[in-house]
Amino acid sequence: MADDWQPPAVLAEFAQLDHDRGPRRGYPEAIYCEGKTPAQVAAIAVEIRTRGGSTLFTRATPDHAKAVLAELPDAAYDQDARMLAWPPEPPSAVGGRVVVLCAGTSDLAVAREALLTARHLGRESELVVDVGVAGLHRVLGKLELLSSARVIVVVAGMDGALPSVVAGLVTAPVVAVPTSVGYGAAFGGLAPLLSMLNSCSPGVAVVNIDNGYGAGHLAAQIAAPA
Amino acid sequence: MADDWQPPAVLAEFAQLDHDRGPRRGYPEAIYCEGKTPAQVAAIAVEIRTRGGSTLFTRATPDHAKAVLAELPDAAYDQDARMLAWPPEPPSAVGGRVVVLCAGTSDLAVAREALLTARHLGRESELVVDVGVAGLHRVLGKLELLSSARVIVVVAGMDGALPSVVAGLVTAPVVAVPTSVGYGAAFGGLAPLLSMLNSCSPGVAVVNIDNGYGAGHLAAQIAAPA
Amino acid sequence: MADDWQPPAVLAEFAQLDHDRGPRRGYPEAIYCEGKTPAQVAAIAVEIRTRGGSTLFTRATPDHAKAVLAELPDAAYDQDARMLAWPPEPPSAVGGRVVVLCAGTSDLAVAREALLTARHLGRESELVVDVGVAGLHRVLGKLELLSSARVIVVVAGMDGALPSVVAGLVTAPVVAVPTSVGYGAAFGGLAPLLSMLNSCSPGVAVVNIDNGYGAGHLAAQIAAPA
Amino acid sequence: MADDWQPPAVLAEFAQLDHDRGPRRGYPEAIYCEGKTPAQVAAIAVEIRTRGGSTLFTRATPDHAKAVLAELPDAAYDQDARMLAWPPEPPSAVGGRVVVLCAGTSDLAVAREALLTARHLGRESELVVDVGVAGLHRVLGKLELLSSARVIVVVAGMDGALPSVVAGLVTAPVVAVPTSVGYGAAFGGLAPLLSMLNSCSPGVAVVNIDNGYGAGHLAAQIAAPA
Amino acid sequence: MADDWQPPAVLAEFAQLDHDRGPRRGYPEAIYCEGKTPAQVAAIAVEIRTRGGSTLFTRATPDHAKAVLAELPDAAYDQDARMLAWPPEPPSAVGGRVVVLCAGTSDLAVAREALLTARHLGRESELVVDVGVAGLHRVLGKLELLSSARVIVVVAGMDGALPSVVAGLVTAPVVAVPTSVGYGAAFGGLAPLLSMLNSCSPGVAVVNIDNGYGAGHLAAQIAAPA
Amino acid sequence: MADDWQPPAVLAEFAQLDHDRGPRRGYPEAIYCEGKTPAQVAAIAVEIRTRGGSTLFTRATPDHAKAVLAELPDAAYDQDARMLAWPPEPPSAVGGRVVVLCAGTSDLAVAREALLTARHLGRESELVVDVGVAGLHRVLGKLELLSSARVIVVVAGMDGALPSVVAGLVTAPVVAVPTSVGYGAAFGGLAPLLSMLNSCSPGVAVVNIDNGYGAGHLAAQIAAPA
Amino acid sequence: MADDWQPPAVLAEFAQLDHDRGPRRGYPEAIYCEGKTPAQVAAIAVEIRTRGGSTLFTRATPDHAKAVLAELPDAAYDQDARMLAWPPEPPSAVGGRVVVLCAGTSDLAVAREALLTARHLGRESELVVDVGVAGLHRVLGKLELLSSARVIVVVAGMDGALPSVVAGLVTAPVVAVPTSVGYGAAFGGLAPLLSMLNSCSPGVAVVNIDNGYGAGHLAAQIAAPA
Amino acid sequence: MADDWQPPAVLAEFAQLDHDRGPRRGYPEAIYCEGKTPAQVAAIAVEIRTRGGSTLFTRATPDHAKAVLAELPDAAYDQDARMLAWPPEPPSAVGGRVVVLCAGTSDLAVAREALLTARHLGRESELVVDVGVAGLHRVLGKLELLSSARVIVVVAGMDGALPSVVAGLVTAPVVAVPTSVGYGAAFGGLAPLLSMLNSCSPGVAVVNIDNGYGAGHLAAQIAAPA
Repeated sequence: MADDWQPPAVLAEFAQLDHDRGPRRGYPEAIYCEGKTPAQVAAIAVEIRTRGGSTLFTRATPDHAKAVLAELPDAAYDQDARMLAWPPEPPSAVGGRVVVLCAGTSDLAVAREALLTARHLGRESELVVDVGVAGLHRVLGKLELLSSARVIVVVAGMDGALPSVVAGLVTAPVVAVPTSVGYGAAFGGLAPLLSMLNSCSPGVAVVNIDNGYGAGHLAAQIAAPA
Repeated sequence: MADDWQPPAVLAEFAQLDHDRGPRRGYPEAIYCEGKTPAQVAAIAVEIRTRGGSTLFTRATPDHAKAVLAELPDAAYDQDARMLAWPPEPPSAVGGRVVVLCAGTSDLAVAREALLTARHLGRESELVVDVGVAGLHRVLGKLELLSSARVIVVVAGMDGALPSVVAGLVTAPVVAVPTSVGYGAAFGGLAPLLSMLNSCSPGVAVVNIDNGYGAGHLAAQIAAPA
Repeated sequence: MADDWQPPAVLAEFAQLDHDRGPRRGYPEAIYCEGKTPAQVAAIAVEIRTRGGSTLFTRATPDHAKAVLAELPDAAYDQDARMLAWPPEPPSAVGGRVVVLCAGTSDLAVAREALLTARHLGRESELVVDVGVAGLHRVLGKLELLSSARVIVVVAGMDGALPSVVAGLVTAPVVAVPTSVGYGAAFGGLAPLLSMLNSCSPGVAVVNIDNGYGAGHLAAQIAAPA
Repeated sequence: MADDWQPPAVLAEFAQLDHDRGPRRGYPEAIYCEGKTPAQVAAIAVEIRTRGGSTLFTRATPDHAKAVLAELPDAAYDQDARMLAWPPEPPSAVGGRVVVLCAGTSDLAVAREALLTARHLGRESELVVDVGVAGLHRVLGKLELLSSARVIVVVAGMDGALPSVVAGLVTAPVVAVPTSVGYGAAFGGLAPLLSMLNSCSPGVAVVNIDNGYGAGHLAAQIAAPA
Repeated sequence: MADDWQPPAVLAEFAQLDHDRGPRRGYPEAIYCEGKTPAQVAAIAVEIRTRGGSTLFTRATPDHAKAVLAELPDAAYDQDARMLAWPPEPPSAVGGRVVVLCAGTSDLAVAREALLTARHLGRESELVVDVGVAGLHRVLGKLELLSSARVIVVVAGMDGALPSVVAGLVTAPVVAVPTSVGYGAAFGGLAPLLSMLNSCSPGVAVVNIDNGYGAGHLAAQIAAPA
Repeated sequence: MADDWQPPAVLAEFAQLDHDRGPRRGYPEAIYCEGKTPAQVAAIAVEIRTRGGSTLFTRATPDHAKAVLAELPDAAYDQDARMLAWPPEPPSAVGGRVVVLCAGTSDLAVAREALLTARHLGRESELVVDVGVAGLHRVLGKLELLSSARVIVVVAGMDGALPSVVAGLVTAPVVAVPTSVGYGAAFGGLAPLLSMLNSCSPGVAVVNIDNGYGAGHLAAQIAAPA
Repeated sequence: MADDWQPPAVLAEFAQLDHDRGPRRGYPEAIYCEGKTPAQVAAIAVEIRTRGGSTLFTRATPDHAKAVLAELPDAAYDQDARMLAWPPEPPSAVGGRVVVLCAGTSDLAVAREALLTARHLGRESELVVDVGVAGLHRVLGKLELLSSARVIVVVAGMDGALPSVVAGLVTAPVVAVPTSVGYGAAFGGLAPLLSMLNSCSPGVAVVNIDNGYGAGHLAAQIAAPA
Repeated sequence: MADDWQPPAVLAEFAQLDHDRGPRRGYPEAIYCEGKTPAQVAAIAVEIRTRGGSTLFTRATPDHAKAVLAELPDAAYDQDARMLAWPPEPPSAVGGRVVVLCAGTSDLAVAREALLTARHLGRESELVVDVGVAGLHRVLGKLELLSSARVIVVVAGMDGALPSVVAGLVTAPVVAVPTSVGYGAAFGGLAPLLSMLNSCSPGVAVVNIDNGYGAGHLAAQIAAPA
């Protein structure tokens, strides 16, 4: 039996880390764990430990997390957000404030991914939970906080109506993240995605379904110091 | 040349009017003009004049309208709503109040179709225009009127967010009508349709895209006297 | 290892219950369990026990149910409908009658969810099973019951044809619930959803796929006492 | 200016007629006019006149018709069905009866295309108009005729519910033709197409949207003499 | 704990068998097992044993099968086709011949479901495997058998090209069954479904994705004795 | 003939201008002309002339433009961008620089709409044309300009690949606008929309198809002075 | 009236021709006319006349053609393929033979676009018309020609079955071009597109719907001399 | 219990191997394992051992692999690519070079399937990993290798932008393989599929989602010796 082909775990055979990304783009690299084996993620962790430089690991299953923590034992791990951060402490915050709104409890994991990403990219970030439009007084009660934000991330599934409502109330741009939460006709997040793209309030920037990392990164860029 | 086949204009060859519908369902018949020739619509108008009984003609182009008015000269015609009503005066209103909300000016034709349908089916009906969620104070300023309604029809395109917001504020059921208004990713009304089906506020009844007639009919049934 | 981030189970960190909803909307709150952890649902149950007020828990897995019953031991649990009700007894029925029709056995769980919701929101409710249009005599045999209804909920998968047939026979409005039952081209409920939205009979109100709770809530509102 | 390339009108440069089709399949050829220039259709008509053999021209615009009639002046032309038949008289009917049901007036053109196709392929064929399920008594009043059919063609737009109802009442197979008639969420015929494919009554054969020709051809094959 | 609601297993609470279907439609009833509990299927089996009359159980998992066989121990069970038949022997064959073609091995389960259905509904039926168009000689080598058929069922996934090729070669109508086999852009059977609906050869009747039962039933109707 | 219903042209009957928007959001109102009659747009122009305050008219046909210019004769009109601005001169630029990239000539109208919107909302804005990825040297030759931007708007149809490439090269956030340009499988802009939502480079904010106005507005917010 | 913004017709304001493309890629530039004004296309023609180098203009309306021919009067224009070539004579053919198959007459314009593109990029090219799979003998009669090809372009609408059949018969790769021809469920070419992507014969390369230019270009590359 | 129907494992009952394919098409047969039982795959392996001739087994689960290796113990098995090759050594390479580019680590399994297929069909093949456009320098650093290729296979998920970038840089045709990797709005590979079909660079040949085998086969045909 000739069974010598195996999923490669030697870094050069499956990945070229983008060493240049920090200098070039101003933000550290992130490792998207989905579709990588734990062994591959571990090999990347070794490289990061060696090279230095801060890194986020996103979409990390518990097995991915275990593999990373074996190499970077002090990395911070958020099970809910499926994210690891190394070094564990975020840098000192500079630039404007990022406020993350979460429409329902079911959207919380994605909202936390956005929150932690923005924090680890150097922004002061705050999370407000369960402020869906079905009870409008909840978001209207947060107007002062919203006015203090340089950018607002709004995470919502179902009808995806919250970003339109929020964008209509404030000066800051809104980063809208549709989630895959909901009954059948949400079609895995298609409903809030389309709703957000069609916002009747200008100033809504849409990212991919469940993409808390992308939202946090975009928010960090928008709130960057001038 | 054997050219004897022609689009039929003799009533029996293209339609069987549902004479029984008034008694059976309690609401008069409506003639959907799209896909019928003006001559066919005229033949139906003749039948209605002969038989008596009130009727609505929906989705009527100016040519359809002209054909109907030639046979039923006192029919009421609303160009914007593409609707004719005969007899022209609605019956005396009974039952609860129907309030029709229109998110934007572009949704007005559909909103008027709903309004006129509900009125001609015997309900007191009122229209409020241009109360989209981008300027939330506009709809919040109508809370008293909304509280007086037995049912609220909400007509909206784009993000279709208004029904969720309204349903979260009132006791009455909301009939939501998506419209085909908007930029490309509205996909002809798909975006607000999905948004409304996924409303995070319970109590939202969805009808077809641009179907003001269906919304008005449903509202009339909901607001019918007990 | 810095592993201090965990899915929050302290109520204020993941949810803001809509205390105002009962007074504002006239119907008690419901807790959508999907996407919440059992610990989160338990925390909500504690709050409800403390605060009083009736509540429904929808889309509850057995693990969710176990967590709720640990805090609210006399809550009523319907495994099939994936619903818990507290207090377990519905209020005395007022308003009109809700009749729930179920096209096939596979739609039964959703139909029961609608039935129980309407009952716990205070309406007299009755269920008729397995009356799909493939054997038309079954629904035609129920005309008397249908005529007594203030609103009819019709639950159907596959072709979603039953609401059109029923709406054509009665005065009452029909709340149509598509289900995700069927062969491949049902596309998870898309086929009956579109069918219902395109009903050739006016008077059909459509809700989300498999959304028995939403249908029951809407029916309760429509059948509310004047 | 080198402008010598032109849409070809010499038969051999744009078409190879399937001379063998009559003998091989037992049914004469049909010419699909959409996408052909009138000059191309005329060239085909000349070939048919020369070679003999009966032919149908489908999806013929008035310009196509004019071009055909210039070459085959006694061809029968049905403007509504957009079809020409040559020779103009159908052959003597053999085999079983084809009954064509048309749900609404707007579906009539497609229904006539099916009717005429079946007739010109040698079947006794009958048309019943405007028997949509919104007024169920209309189709139930035709049960005797339906029972006499070897195959029933059902043409319907909107919810596409009629084939399921009919198939549940009879022994004969049903050929279902979705039409592109309806409000926005019909999505050009997608709604009735999916509805028909998901019929809860076995015995429904679906053809393409608005494809009256295909339905008539299939019906003729099903009703062929044994 | 009030836990008295359970998925019902008493026949009258979840199903109304269509006793009239055999007489009315000429074909025995079939029980669609998907979405029913084994206990429910067992209750139906008891009813069938009591009442007599032949029945097919489709989409039966091993658990469903076990439940049926406990009540109808001599029922015939085909694991691959997920079907049970009772009585186990098909009736004597009458009418024309049904030939079932299977494009690839992966389509075999669906093809067998069609084959067995047609046989149990009383038709002589034959299966030809693995005759996809990638090796055209395989289907061309079966022309004699194809010519002997009153109807041909063609089961194919991927490009769904086989029905067009077969329909172009024979007089008999073709029943086309798309399957959910294939790479990603097959989208669960959408690709062959659309391909079959758009067949360039007239005479193709399409049924639902993976619906071998529906195809076998339709074929049995088409091949019924005159 | 009772023909007294007409599309309303009295402002209060079809629109409620959002007077509060400037103070509340910091950006002036825009009038979306699509779905409004020229008479309605003219009535709005009168109101704006009376009230003062700057305004953009978007999606203006030549007829809309004519109606606006009759009331606001010095408004600036860009036929290509289908936009009118009043007052015609943009305010003095503050905040960061907006660079608009246009992938192909066919995307130019949308790019100009973005450019003019950002300018009229007070940002220094610059346009670079025809820098699609098929000739990568064109965009690579603009790196210096790109590095000077606070935000980059990228307008692209077809594969929508340009935003990913640009975002990978710079620090600034990218606002991506899909256009409806392209061959059939672009499906009216769906292809670049999905491509942009799935960008492998973080930092891409997506807006609606062909929504140059929305992109310019969002860019102005992102580049606002701190 | 400040009406100074106009669709730009000065080359540098709307386009950057890819001068480097010939040397870099080995194939001359093509100008996609859709979305460009005739004046813009004329400006490009002037540039090409000045600079030299061969060019194709694709998707050219008669107005585009007129504008090009005014500047490049000896350009070759094919109305059917909507293409202009300059210089009008193709270069001497080198490399392998390209055979273009056209399934039906309605696909001819796209097939000609592929044919002319391959020729003007320097390949010997031949066209075979109307060889759809409904009459299989037509394509089987061309096996010798097909065997002589280095690459075969297959243009087909409807079921898109021809590429699978052809690829199964030959050694050469097949470039498949879906067309937007067909009845409703072809959904503008989606049906043949999916069919071709799911070909059960390996060796099928798919390009965009109606993209004859792309197919001809790809074929020229595949058949390039080694 | 009549339980005599079982998934067939005797070759003739489920498959007809295409013995003629090698001679006819010039490339050996491949066995698509998905949808076949291990027993069926084993029966095919026996036939291949007996008959001789090289074969690839694609989409092989570990169970399929075990079954094949029991019959063909020296077959080469690549777990990652889910492929077995027999004989294990590829033939000597002839024709041009195939270069396979892999956009991200998550696309590696598909890229390896393409690589191994091309090698086993007789082409020199090379793999370059992790060269997505987010870090453009990675692919630009490989220009020399790309220039040496007769054909380039590009495997990418998410935005599918890499094929457009690569095709714009080289003379060789590009075979683009979308993968199902990515966040929700990738819709199982739909996003990169559409992106690749709409490439703004001519010369991109698209195959099915995740279809590494098809890409490798097509590349081998394109790079075949003249």
